[in-house]
Amino acid sequence: MKEADIVLFPELTLTSYPPEDLLLRKGLYTQLDVAMARIGREVHDIDLLVGYPRRTAAGLYNACSVIRHGRIIATYHKQHLPNYSVFDEKRYFVPGDRACVFDLRGIPTALSICEDIWVHGTAFQAKAAGARLMLNINASPYHLGKMHTREEILRAAVREGRMPVIYVNLVGGQDELVFDGASMVMQASGEVVARCPEFREALQLVEVSSAADPRLESPAVASSARESGDASLSRPEAASTLLLRGELSHVPTAEESAYMALVTGVRDYVRKNGFKGAVIGVSGGIDSALTLAIAADALGADQIEAVLMPSRYTAQMSIDDARAEAAALGVHYHIISIEQAFNALTDSLAPVFAGLKPDVTEENIQARCRGVILMAISNKTGKIVLTTGNKSEMACGYATLYGDMAGGFAPLKDVPKMLVYRLAEYRNQRGAVIPKRVFERPPSAELRPDQKDEDSLPPYPILDPILERYVEHDQTPEEIIAAGFEAQTVKRVARMVDRNEYKRRQAAPGVRISPRAFGRDRRYPITSGYSEIGTRD
Amino acid sequence: MKEADIVLFPELTLTSYPPEDLLLRKGLYTQLDVAMARIGREVHDIDLLVGYPRRTAAGLYNACSVIRHGRIIATYHKQHLPNYSVFDEKRYFVPGDRACVFDLRGIPTALSICEDIWVHGTAFQAKAAGARLMLNINASPYHLGKMHTREEILRAAVREGRMPVIYVNLVGGQDELVFDGASMVMQASGEVVARCPEFREALQLVEVSSAADPRLESPAVASSARESGDASLSRPEAASTLLLRGELSHVPTAEESAYMALVTGVRDYVRKNGFKGAVIGVSGGIDSALTLAIAADALGADQIEAVLMPSRYTAQMSIDDARAEAAALGVHYHIISIEQAFNALTDSLAPVFAGLKPDVTEENIQARCRGVILMAISNKTGKIVLTTGNKSEMACGYATLYGDMAGGFAPLKDVPKMLVYRLAEYRNQRGAVIPKRVFERPPSAELRPDQKDEDSLPPYPILDPILERYVEHDQTPEEIIAAGFEAQTVKRVARMVDRNEYKRRQAAPGVRISPRAFGRDRRYPITSGYSEIGTRD
Repeated sequence: MKEADIVLFPELTLTSYPPEDLLLRKGLYTQLDVAMARIGREVHDIDLLVGYPRRTAAGLYNACSVIRHGRIIATYHKQHLPNYSVFDEKRYFVPGDRACVFDLRGIPTALSICEDIWVHGTAFQAKAAGARLMLNINASPYHLGKMHTREEILRAAVREGRMPVIYVNLVGGQDELVFDGASMVMQASGEVVARCPEFREALQLVEVSSAADPRLESPAVASSARESGDASLSRPEAASTLLLRGELSHVPTAEESAYMALVTGVRDYVRKNGFKGAVIGVSGGIDSALTLAIAADALGADQIEAVLMPSRYTAQMSIDDARAEAAALGVHYHIISIEQAFNALTDSLAPVFAGLKPDVTEENIQARCRGVILMAISNKTGKIVLTTGNKSEMACGYATLYGDMAGGFAPLKDVPKMLVYRLAEYRNQRGAVIPKRVFERPPSAELRPDQKDEDSLPPYPILDPILERYVEHDQTPEEIIAAGFEAQTVKRVARMVDRNEYKRRQAAPGVRISPRAFGRDRRYPITSGYSEIGTRD
Repeated sequence: MKEADIVLFPELTLTSYPPEDLLLRKGLYTQLDVAMARIGREVHDIDLLVGYPRRTAAGLYNACSVIRHGRIIATYHKQHLPNYSVFDEKRYFVPGDRACVFDLRGIPTALSICEDIWVHGTAFQAKAAGARLMLNINASPYHLGKMHTREEILRAAVREGRMPVIYVNLVGGQDELVFDGASMVMQASGEVVARCPEFREALQLVEVSSAADPRLESPAVASSARESGDASLSRPEAASTLLLRGELSHVPTAEESAYMALVTGVRDYVRKNGFKGAVIGVSGGIDSALTLAIAADALGADQIEAVLMPSRYTAQMSIDDARAEAAALGVHYHIISIEQAFNALTDSLAPVFAGLKPDVTEENIQARCRGVILMAISNKTGKIVLTTGNKSEMACGYATLYGDMAGGFAPLKDVPKMLVYRLAEYRNQRGAVIPKRVFERPPSAELRPDQKDEDSLPPYPILDPILERYVEHDQTPEEIIAAGFEAQTVKRVARMVDRNEYKRRQAAPGVRISPRAFGRDRRYPITSGYSEIGTRD
């Protein structure tokens, strides 16, 4: 490959990330041995850097090895094992305790894995071991703004070690996590001299030359197959300073980046789990409109079925807008009224409910009729149901279990309502698929006459920042009130979040795009006497 | 309290266990400071040993302190932090690094917390620090047979430290985990001289005397309030050997113990989360019969509503048996046919399904009609729906999402089918509540004519041991086949388990009674290309 000397693959290349409790299955290690032997047998004329879980008498390591001519010539054990947020590495691995420097065509080169470079001292340790170049392989999950954070972290490591770093990251989605790739190369000066695209596999050539004698430069390759990252090759003289060169890919805006994350998360969940497409209940609201667009972009319009399920409370406008969305995307749609099913269920329950007034029960029955219909189409067609709820709703429990929450994957689960609007606007800029009216109508679940979300929730421009503080930043209600929010509102929101952990526990997984998503990122007990709002408010 | 010198409470007394990510909320520490100050102010004339999370400049410790006359006189930091199975303590805590020995009325007494005593060296360290008695406070989750394991572990520690151990454990349920109490006192000889009951709060008096001069003996108390354990008091002379005395509570059989675990788990989930009772769909099968009995025993028959939801496929025998179960327990029941709802839904879907044959879709619609009806009764009454599926079904995905899986808590989630029968027999011994015929009929979901579980699953006497090996012991299919099971069956079972992770992810929590339950105990990715059975079989 362009005479590359080495090709770099990401952290835990052979299992992908995170393998979770599959790491406890001894069957895994038999398969890994077979895979490593095969790589050694089949790959010639190029070095490989491959990540894998490595069993030793001292325990299991998150390891990587350089394979040259069918033999392992260097092995590094990850030293810093993240065990916070979405990470559980101490559940499986023991930490390494030393640098690993190997000779890459005359350049003493250090290996490191992900978290290692986030911790002060690793680059220094590599330098002390004689390294002049650092390779850092990652499975670093995406969240909004993380590319910038990574660059700062890399810059600190580059300064500490006074050497360039080639940073390789995974691309693709696995359950809640999506990996954005965006591998990069940072010069010893702190300058980014090569950057791979976000959310796309790429092959990045990195050339390494000696600053002392640039004539000696030779090519270096950064490669990325599906779910792999960069690779570098180099054949320069030893020199006091190395110069690296590659290509700089476009840096996306926040909306573009988040949208790509959602598309990647949906595509990989649906494809890797073998579904034949997706079924989506479309209501005429902004959430289902955005979900439909994401699904069509991820899977192709011909793989999607939109289902409109009107009831007596559905406005004609809602039906018109939902139809317009399907038409604009070229998605096939069905209209199935829930009236007949709703009436049958309420009739059947009438003897039990005699003398009791209608309440949220009847609203939930409507949502659940829709859930049953969508799941029936899913069962019959082999297509997955995508739910359409957003993070603001998930936080407050403004959703019906087994109703609008019924489905296999929840694309907007980590997207607050205000960001839903921004992403919908972004998508319309690329081609108008969501009618303007959908942005302008007050959000409503249409489960009773003239219902509006604001009957049950604070307005989203107030709700979303409160949720961000309470859920993502663990601020206390007192702190949020002190920041200028109305006390009653803050307490009401906190109480809704606390009380609805049981709903979230049964929610479908969705794409994490924030620094703290519901799911493996925020682990609260359902049964809990803890409250930060006191017994009265 | 009987002139006790000290009362012992379990691990993390002030937050209960596990607090999970509540430990990341700074609001928690404000409340803990208030609680500790209040204890110091209000408790006099007796020492307290209290567990709590303790923030220091060096990090957060899983700590315990002895409080005497309103002041902390000794603090210990847990040294061994479990981070496997259901435990995630390295996510939150940093480990302590030393013994803590305090003077308990002349006896140098070491503190330790849970896992510490499971690790070789802790008792030796305590002895080296001069201790003659070890207090060990726990939040040790129950599983079948664990009492015996704990006793062996304790015996090893007692031998290592050549000193008695007073072991205090939590009582009660929190989400998936149930704590069985069963606090005990082990003499330096290895003899258990006091034991609290399983699954019941108890106050255990432990008297400590000097073997050298038994006349100097004085009382010692082991107390247990709700979710607390033992306490000991002592006022002997220093002596080379201590003699401890208390009361030995009855040791239950496996069935009695498991049944109590399920009752405790259900009662605490329902009560602590504020539900007004429980709603249970009763089919005439053994699973719903046992679930109904557990719920009635946990909450009282007057808090339960049984719901019979027959369809065209329901045998009259099923209705009769379900009725008989409700009558025997004194539980109120409703009969609500699903025919009308099922017909309405299939009618509504007919245009979309035109030309397609009936399949599992129509079976799932039946299960989901039942789910909607149960949830409607739950919404209307404030009673929680208890699901009735067992571990064998959960493992194989033999259940309908949002159908029979709809509900807030799953009592039998960790009970394999064969154990369901044993527990039902045990319950009938205490008073016959399940008709004999329910034990004898072949299990059936009754979702199509003459359906039997064995149409879809291997017979349970074969299925259950395969599942235990594959799920609980991580054996490979090869190992299970080598143990004498039929190859095709083993591969089929393994494939079912692998493919249904997505269903389990949306399942209600249930009581863990095995060494490996689905849920926080077995963390598998849904999206996974890993398989131990190859692509063909």
